[in-house]
Amino acid sequence: MNQNLIEITSYIHQNIPITAHLGIQVKAYDHNSVTLSAPLAPNLNHRNTAFGGSLSALAILSGWALLHLKLKEKGIRSRLVIQTSTFDFSDPIDSDFEAICSLPSDEQFEKFLRTLQRRKRARISLTSTINCASGKGGSHEGTYVAVILTENESV
Amino acid sequence: MNQNLIEITSYIHQNIPITAHLGIQVKAYDHNSVTLSAPLAPNLNHRNTAFGGSLSALAILSGWALLHLKLKEKGIRSRLVIQTSTFDFSDPIDSDFEAICSLPSDEQFEKFLRTLQRRKRARISLTSTINCASGKGGSHEGTYVAVILTENESV
Repeated sequence: MNQNLIEITSYIHQNIPITAHLGIQVKAYDHNSVTLSAPLAPNLNHRNTAFGGSLSALAILSGWALLHLKLKEKGIRSRLVIQTSTFDFSDPIDSDFEAICSLPSDEQFEKFLRTLQRRKRARISLTSTINCASGKGGSHEGTYVAVILTENESV
Repeated sequence: MNQNLIEITSYIHQNIPITAHLGIQVKAYDHNSVTLSAPLAPNLNHRNTAFGGSLSALAILSGWALLHLKLKEKGIRSRLVIQTSTFDFSDPIDSDFEAICSLPSDEQFEKFLRTLQRRKRARISLTSTINCASGKGGSHEGTYVAVILTENESV
């Protein structure tokens, strides 16, 4: 795993401590999408498949992580808040799993950035897919709000 | 806390281990609604408010717990699976929090039970409200599927 992925994983574990218990790791980031993984063992439910709440938490975090990384590399200091989260579960997950979150079209992302610069606040919806060894575990749509920080504000 | 609430909390912690890390407890159950609580500390995010993923997990579990308790007291052996989860976040949560999930109307719940007995499978949507000391943290709607177990099947 490269240094950036280790750093962002460590940042998440330190600042959102339940993510360490969930075993979440940032596995890949290519400026257009991010992949977060989690092991099955700590996320088991009473039926020996992945707990829906763990899947939802991983998916919510995947959208946050993608926006966090994108805005950071553009030098935009903002705070990110989730506004709505919708998860459609498909087959039960019986192995380690991952959430892949991708940016929408360039056009939509550029519009989000322009609104954010102009109004100091903008909203964007991001879709994540949850996969495991045996197939698809579900899909998630999260709507996130970014707010530009003033000079004195910290994240 | 009465013995039943201690037992169901212990069942959840043993069978869905991440719920112990989330600090989830079943605080109240009155045959019509269930209240699950969680402390803020283990669920903090980078902004010192509650992590959205933790709220979502608590809400998803609240609907599951209500159905689990209701079907158990009616002697119906079933497995419960979440199908969709929609969370509308409102104000940030800066204290311990709880999710209160209530049954829909008697008519809707009776219809769900009748369908479950007849078709061995039925679906129901349940709404949960997330509260904290300073107000409302959001609302959740979960759609759950119950499937009657055959004699040889375990939950």
